[in-house]
Amino acid sequence: VEMNNWELQDEPATLDDILISCRATLKYAIKTAHPRYFNQLSTGLDMVGLAADWLTSTANTNMFTYEVAPVFVLLEYVTLKKMREIIGWTDGRGDGIFSPGGAISNMYAMLLARFKMFPEVKEKGMSSVPRLVAFTSEHSHFSIKKGAAALGIGTESVICIKADESGKLIPADLERRILEAKQKGFVPFFVSATAGTTVYGAFDPLIAISDICKKYNIWMHVDGAWGGSLLMSRRHRWKLDGVERANSVTWNPHKMMSVPLQCSALLVREEGLMQNCNQMHACYLFQQDKHYDLSYDTGDKALQCGRHVDIFKLWLMWRAKGTIGFEAQIDKCLELSEYLYNKIKDREGYEMVFDGKPQHTNVCFWYLPPGIRYMEDKEERKKHLHKVAPVIKARMMEYGTTMVSYQPQGDKVNFFRMVISNPAATFEDIDFLIEEIERLGQDL
Amino acid sequence: VEMNNWELQDEPATLDDILISCRATLKYAIKTAHPRYFNQLSTGLDMVGLAADWLTSTANTNMFTYEVAPVFVLLEYVTLKKMREIIGWTDGRGDGIFSPGGAISNMYAMLLARFKMFPEVKEKGMSSVPRLVAFTSEHSHFSIKKGAAALGIGTESVICIKADESGKLIPADLERRILEAKQKGFVPFFVSATAGTTVYGAFDPLIAISDICKKYNIWMHVDGAWGGSLLMSRRHRWKLDGVERANSVTWNPHKMMSVPLQCSALLVREEGLMQNCNQMHACYLFQQDKHYDLSYDTGDKALQCGRHVDIFKLWLMWRAKGTIGFEAQIDKCLELSEYLYNKIKDREGYEMVFDGKPQHTNVCFWYLPPGIRYMEDKEERKKHLHKVAPVIKARMMEYGTTMVSYQPQGDKVNFFRMVISNPAATFEDIDFLIEEIERLGQDL
Repeated sequence: VEMNNWELQDEPATLDDILISCRATLKYAIKTAHPRYFNQLSTGLDMVGLAADWLTSTANTNMFTYEVAPVFVLLEYVTLKKMREIIGWTDGRGDGIFSPGGAISNMYAMLLARFKMFPEVKEKGMSSVPRLVAFTSEHSHFSIKKGAAALGIGTESVICIKADESGKLIPADLERRILEAKQKGFVPFFVSATAGTTVYGAFDPLIAISDICKKYNIWMHVDGAWGGSLLMSRRHRWKLDGVERANSVTWNPHKMMSVPLQCSALLVREEGLMQNCNQMHACYLFQQDKHYDLSYDTGDKALQCGRHVDIFKLWLMWRAKGTIGFEAQIDKCLELSEYLYNKIKDREGYEMVFDGKPQHTNVCFWYLPPGIRYMEDKEERKKHLHKVAPVIKARMMEYGTTMVSYQPQGDKVNFFRMVISNPAATFEDIDFLIEEIERLGQDL
Repeated sequence: VEMNNWELQDEPATLDDILISCRATLKYAIKTAHPRYFNQLSTGLDMVGLAADWLTSTANTNMFTYEVAPVFVLLEYVTLKKMREIIGWTDGRGDGIFSPGGAISNMYAMLLARFKMFPEVKEKGMSSVPRLVAFTSEHSHFSIKKGAAALGIGTESVICIKADESGKLIPADLERRILEAKQKGFVPFFVSATAGTTVYGAFDPLIAISDICKKYNIWMHVDGAWGGSLLMSRRHRWKLDGVERANSVTWNPHKMMSVPLQCSALLVREEGLMQNCNQMHACYLFQQDKHYDLSYDTGDKALQCGRHVDIFKLWLMWRAKGTIGFEAQIDKCLELSEYLYNKIKDREGYEMVFDGKPQHTNVCFWYLPPGIRYMEDKEERKKHLHKVAPVIKARMMEYGTTMVSYQPQGDKVNFFRMVISNPAATFEDIDFLIEEIERLGQDL
């Protein structure tokens, strides 16, 4: 990649040079749409979604007022309402916004929770409120801590709750830590449950968590960036039972629904709260004497001013597939991951990172090359095993055949985390992955 | 718009229905690329930029690691460095990021300023630090207050500094308010100067402001979301003299450089600060044992996790036009606005909102229909005048001929704010605007 000349010049380049740049960019790009690309939670490339994104680029407008984006504002309204219906909120009532990604959606939720409990924080800042504490599982996404750091709450005020072996938050530990915090005089204001953790794909027990949140009057957020889409599957939505009790839900259609990046929604149960929390009444942008219904000017409830149009690709895909189309592709991905799990759980040379069937499409496993398989010294074995996944992955990338993620977790050395979110993947692709891991790793 | 059926269904729609939806969406879309669309700071549609955005959509990847976006990460690096060189930082050193818009870029700046002064705030939150105060002009963008609200600083801790008649911050008032805050025991930590205010297009006096910031050891941010692009013009960059003394600069290529939405950069003078401020060391995402130089994994310095690829359209346009191409289109827009100013400043029925030539392309004026022009009662005249711009604009939108923004400001009743950022606009389009305002407003 670095061989090419990518520098910016004073003088214009020729059209030929521009085309060469485009070709080189595509040539060296990672083929995220390839059915053997399993590296991230966002994979695949939906043709209707792509066409819709092209149309969006061509329309080149901004979400802040109805005046400059009448159709897109309307489609956002329709789609958010539909998503709230699917969550199970009465008549789809509530509020929401499309934000530039799950981390920002989660930050919105934390911001709303704080404002709900202490509205004066908007004007007076954190010095006007007692010490606030938030709770989330040790397996949750790092954006919860990032949000707390940004919001002036501080990462030390995010209390990590223990997860069980399969990665689910343990409600008893949550309650214990809430009581502990209250005894110290801190104010618990926010619990972020995860529906589909990043590594294990675990679903926290939402009903038990909501009981605790209700008991202690704490805002319950569900980070369903990864797992929220399972709400569209009649076969799998039970994993999110209790989501309708949440105060807010993050749900990223750009992950499990294969909508082109970026497309993340925050759904909020209470109407009007976002507006009150974020509005600044900038009269030069949101004039009060326009000739249309101003409730469509959604810009002032956003943290952003200009906001990219992320809605059209989701809306058009939804029209093209119907809810049942999304359901089918989600079910298929989960079926593929179950196939993978069944294939390797008893296979020679594999160890699962945790027991039991995967809840989401995440399958976490170690591959043990023959040379390591029978090592007696446990520590020695662990040390070797830690290096296996990085080497196999580096070789995958050199050959360009497939790509899959690995990471350590707690005291567990590097393991592969397979995820499947591309409905173009097939059983053969799963078979290939296993063969490829063995081909590239057998000498290690 | 509401006549159409935009609802989402369980069943898929036909291809015909999808195409009808696309056509309807384009039909009812606001033609932001039209040379007579003057409504927003972001207008126009650059063909190379559009092609680049289409390619970006097709590549459908994410900025967080070099591993999944090698070319785009590299292009971001090259482009940010070039932008820092243009700002005037030695050898283009420093840091930066493309964020989802100017409001978020400004929020990043405030976050960095706070972290620089009180790094403990990341872990311990705002309760560990004294009361912080920020300063910005009364004409500055509302995102400064929005950021302060979100970051737990509070809007009351954003002190609005007086601006002169033409909208420039008055340095003497800034110093007075800083001293006042210090006397109260508050800690001034952040000054946001504006280079190109939203309504007047005013440029704050950066050199005088930087002297004050240096004297009191305060982070100096320049919000050049709108005016930063003038740095590319040899004729106009003097308006930002002193920008090289800033600690951070917001610069939105999606405004004056006509890059398709979204494309906003935050540039930071100090290297490493963003990383320290925002990193959470999520080992499942940013593995430390990869086979390439990890300094290219920029994801952990972002507030976001996944981050949309906003760089390619800017980079490709820059290659296609060269720096001199951007300069020419910026110069042209400023020439058009000067033409407009010269045309109406002494014209019957027009009053300028402030004296003197526009600094940016903003031209702020009242149009007085004949019936109002000679009213003796000043208050009565004002009351009538307030209603003129909204009615003319409503009529413009009904006819669909042109579109221009209006707003009140302080005690000034509704006036038109013309801005020109589309290089496709011509002198004839300016002539048309004036004729149209007179045609639609003469009976009022």
